[in-house]
Amino acid sequence: MSGQALVAGAGLAGSLTAVYLARRGFAVKVLERRGDPRTPGVREQGRSINLGLSQRGIVALREVGLLDRLRPLTVPMRGRVVHLPDGLRFQPYGLAEDQILHSVLRHDLNVALVDEAERLGVEFRWGHRVTAVDRAKPAVTATGPGGAEVHTADLVVGADGAFSAVRTHLGRGLRVDLHQEFLEWGYKELLIPVGDDGRPRTELRALHVWPGDDGLIVAHPNADGSLTATVFLPFAGEHGFAGLTEPAKVRAFFARRFPDTLTLIPDVVEQFLDHEAASLVTVRTAPWHVTTDEGRGVVLVGDAAHAVYPFFGQGMNAAFEDCSVLDRCLAAHPGDLPGALAAFEAARRPHTDVLAELSKRNFVELRDKLRSPLFLVRKQADLALHRLFPDAWVPLYTLIAHTTVPYGEALARSRRQDRLLGAAGVGLAGAALAGTALATLIRGRCRKQVN
Amino acid sequence: MSGQALVAGAGLAGSLTAVYLARRGFAVKVLERRGDPRTPGVREQGRSINLGLSQRGIVALREVGLLDRLRPLTVPMRGRVVHLPDGLRFQPYGLAEDQILHSVLRHDLNVALVDEAERLGVEFRWGHRVTAVDRAKPAVTATGPGGAEVHTADLVVGADGAFSAVRTHLGRGLRVDLHQEFLEWGYKELLIPVGDDGRPRTELRALHVWPGDDGLIVAHPNADGSLTATVFLPFAGEHGFAGLTEPAKVRAFFARRFPDTLTLIPDVVEQFLDHEAASLVTVRTAPWHVTTDEGRGVVLVGDAAHAVYPFFGQGMNAAFEDCSVLDRCLAAHPGDLPGALAAFEAARRPHTDVLAELSKRNFVELRDKLRSPLFLVRKQADLALHRLFPDAWVPLYTLIAHTTVPYGEALARSRRQDRLLGAAGVGLAGAALAGTALATLIRGRCRKQVN
Ligand SMILES: Cc1cc2nc3c(=O)[nH]c(=O)nc-3n(C[C@H](O)[C@H](O)[C@H](O)COP(=O)(O)OP(=O)(O)OC[C@H]3O[C@@H](n4cnc5c(N)ncnc54)[C@H](O)[C@@H]3O)c2cc1C
Ligand SMILES: Cc1cc2nc3c(=O)[nH]c(=O)nc-3n(C[C@H](O)[C@H](O)[C@H](O)COP(=O)(O)OP(=O)(O)OC[C@H]3O[C@@H](n4cnc5c(N)ncnc54)[C@H](O)[C@@H]3O)c2cc1C
Repeated sequence: MSGQALVAGAGLAGSLTAVYLARRGFAVKVLERRGDPRTPGVREQGRSINLGLSQRGIVALREVGLLDRLRPLTVPMRGRVVHLPDGLRFQPYGLAEDQILHSVLRHDLNVALVDEAERLGVEFRWGHRVTAVDRAKPAVTATGPGGAEVHTADLVVGADGAFSAVRTHLGRGLRVDLHQEFLEWGYKELLIPVGDDGRPRTELRALHVWPGDDGLIVAHPNADGSLTATVFLPFAGEHGFAGLTEPAKVRAFFARRFPDTLTLIPDVVEQFLDHEAASLVTVRTAPWHVTTDEGRGVVLVGDAAHAVYPFFGQGMNAAFEDCSVLDRCLAAHPGDLPGALAAFEAARRPHTDVLAELSKRNFVELRDKLRSPLFLVRKQADLALHRLFPDAWVPLYTLIAHTTVPYGEALARSRRQDRLLGAAGVGLAGAALAGTALATLIRGRCRKQVN
Repeated sequence: MSGQALVAGAGLAGSLTAVYLARRGFAVKVLERRGDPRTPGVREQGRSINLGLSQRGIVALREVGLLDRLRPLTVPMRGRVVHLPDGLRFQPYGLAEDQILHSVLRHDLNVALVDEAERLGVEFRWGHRVTAVDRAKPAVTATGPGGAEVHTADLVVGADGAFSAVRTHLGRGLRVDLHQEFLEWGYKELLIPVGDDGRPRTELRALHVWPGDDGLIVAHPNADGSLTATVFLPFAGEHGFAGLTEPAKVRAFFARRFPDTLTLIPDVVEQFLDHEAASLVTVRTAPWHVTTDEGRGVVLVGDAAHAVYPFFGQGMNAAFEDCSVLDRCLAAHPGDLPGALAAFEAARRPHTDVLAELSKRNFVELRDKLRSPLFLVRKQADLALHRLFPDAWVPLYTLIAHTTVPYGEALARSRRQDRLLGAAGVGLAGAALAGTALATLIRGRCRKQVN
């Protein structure tokens, strides 16, 4: 397939889409409202924001031949370290060597994708904001330093994030479903710097979690030994962002709720007061695409199509998986863009809708359950069963993070497993020996279930 | 309370809000994008679109002293007539004399409200479309024949319908939840004219329903003996609006599905092909209001705050109830507009959220269930129990249409009743004698339930 493609947004989804489309023979132009991320100074100025790359993202990056180049920039995370008042608990992610997450700087990843896209001939127009889309042509109006310009294309891809302008224009006057919901909690990013001796302040190369129903922190390690922590708090209330506006209050709050952060982040109060609280949004929409009688079309990918809360660490991974699925659909419908886009949406939307729900659920899990002994026993039983039946019994988290089983199927499978666990009365029977004890009980049933 | 109030939209909610606010001492201006509905010729040109006025709307109209003036313009509907292939079934709405609906022309109702508002000193600016709202002042920009003008006010009310511009501007950049969903079905309005003898073609002054899972019709009588029928069909497919584009196909479809309409509407094919299919949308949003530190504010009412599918006939009724609740909140918080608006939203939003769900459910009921014998038995049992225990057992439809029990409470109560009916095994036991037989069974329980 070939033709002109126009991508709105040079973020993670936009730059990877550009790579895929260029490889498939499209002449690709990307319109991005920000400046070139490779401009000297940009990396140093920006905060070190990192993301957890998991299986779905890895598969896509491998597909376009970028994984090996990125590997040196990533830090493996082999499990999660839960910070509790009485110390740390380590929960490994899974069994196999490849069941790890990889922490990577958003900036580094984005630059690698942009570099690769340019190498393949993609043209980036930095500082160009998409302000209108005429879906009937399709044509895109972008406003740049030189004023407004109109570009037409065979394929327009909206990869312009959770508040997508392409999405708005795609839906105007059509029967478009849109569900937009904000969490009552927001977040701020804080840097856990390397120690004065130049060494990391925590040696555990893992995802760190401080759970809690009135605030929680998640931190990923960086290659230089620092970590980026994201503090999630309610917006409202005395102990929310609204109330925590004075140094004394902030210090007292961290001392009470997250005592070890005071040593991990010496300037925690200054950083906290210095950074803006950002909000978290879930967006589901339908349709994701419109096509013309002439066989052209507009389609959404990434956060523009499905923004989810970050509590499953899947937003970027799902966005990358979108790009890979879209590419496969283009391959399967040569010369038939409408067919390809329809196949893409049909293959993908039901699963990202499930991801949105799972990401909401994981908020509740991180907030309320991670400190519950009953819940932890259940998690252990889940993992013990996985150890006994590595293929037949796979915990939900493992299915989401370490496989490419479509999200909806992963959920359905985990529901079956939950029913078995529930039926066996784990929670109630309690006890950490759950795993082995249950195994005998369930072995027969489980086989039936999976085969 | 007094001050300047600005209402966007002079539809049903806007004109009634204007009446309430003027009565409470506000100086009220209304901005409406359309022309004055009283302009000679407008009534005659417009189609006779009518609505079912039920208890909630009636209470509000009585409160502002308009009910008696409107009474002569309405037509009572004492129940629903279900058109089935083998004939008609009549289902009375309830027991009491006041358990009837009133069919009224949208145009007549709107004009009565506008007249009353003007009598109270409200200024209407026809042909003025709201294009922006600055919620921080608040100020409203409206574009009229003379260009754009900016109005400031103490209170801005967004009564500009399901695609509210006020709502869009109220939420811009804020953490606003928005759920917008379109039904896969749309509708066209058709007129069932009076007979050639000048008499109504059906003598039954009731709401007429032609149920069906591939199309349904609802018709309300008009004062002149005609009826307005609304045909609901899927947009897609051969037997949807997309496929029914040729006279022969349309005639065959009506002949097969709604045979008696061919005599009731002699020009059914011409009307059907002549009218545009319109879409149906559900909108839920939060918050409904924002206020300033100076005690001013913006608030949404009616479809702007909560558009629902029309299958419970409650959209206008809920909008009128909004106006009444808002007025009571203003009375309860004298000199405290932020308090009043917060109280209004807290009192109201949970219930209109429930109405949205009920209206979706009623679509399924009209489409799939109204022809099911089991369902009809259950309905009969419901009504029989109501007859036996008029206060203790009230069917959901009665609670919604014939009382002012808040929607959420109505649903909760009907769920308790459903559990009892279910427990008593009606559906399964079947049989039309359900009513009396059950009564003895349930009498004890039911008493316990309600007292
Ligand atoms: C706190 C937090 C932590 C997260 N952690 C993880 C994680 O660990 N793992 C994970 O997989 N995901 C994570 N995510 C999710 C991840 O960040 C997103 O899913 C991902 O960035 C989506 O990529 P995107 O390209 O679709 O959108 P974006 O990254 O938002 O990129 C959109 C791009 O479009 C540009 N743009 C926007 N509007 C216009 C316009 N009108 N014209 C031109 N350009 C425009 C923007 O400037 C931007 O460059 C996290 C998210 C948050 C908020
Ligand atoms: C087919 C159908 C049947 C129905 N049947 C019933 C029924 O039987 N019973 C019932 O209770 N409800 C019924 N409803 C619902 C009812 O019509 C609505 O709930 C009701 O009209 C809502 O009133 P509103 O004033 O909030 O909105 P609207 O009636 O939509 O009025 C909004 C007004 O704002 C104006 N406006 C819009 N944008 C702007 C702008 N930017 N600037 C200035 N003015 C603007 C519009 O011109 C309009 O006059 C039905 C609806 C449909 C679609």
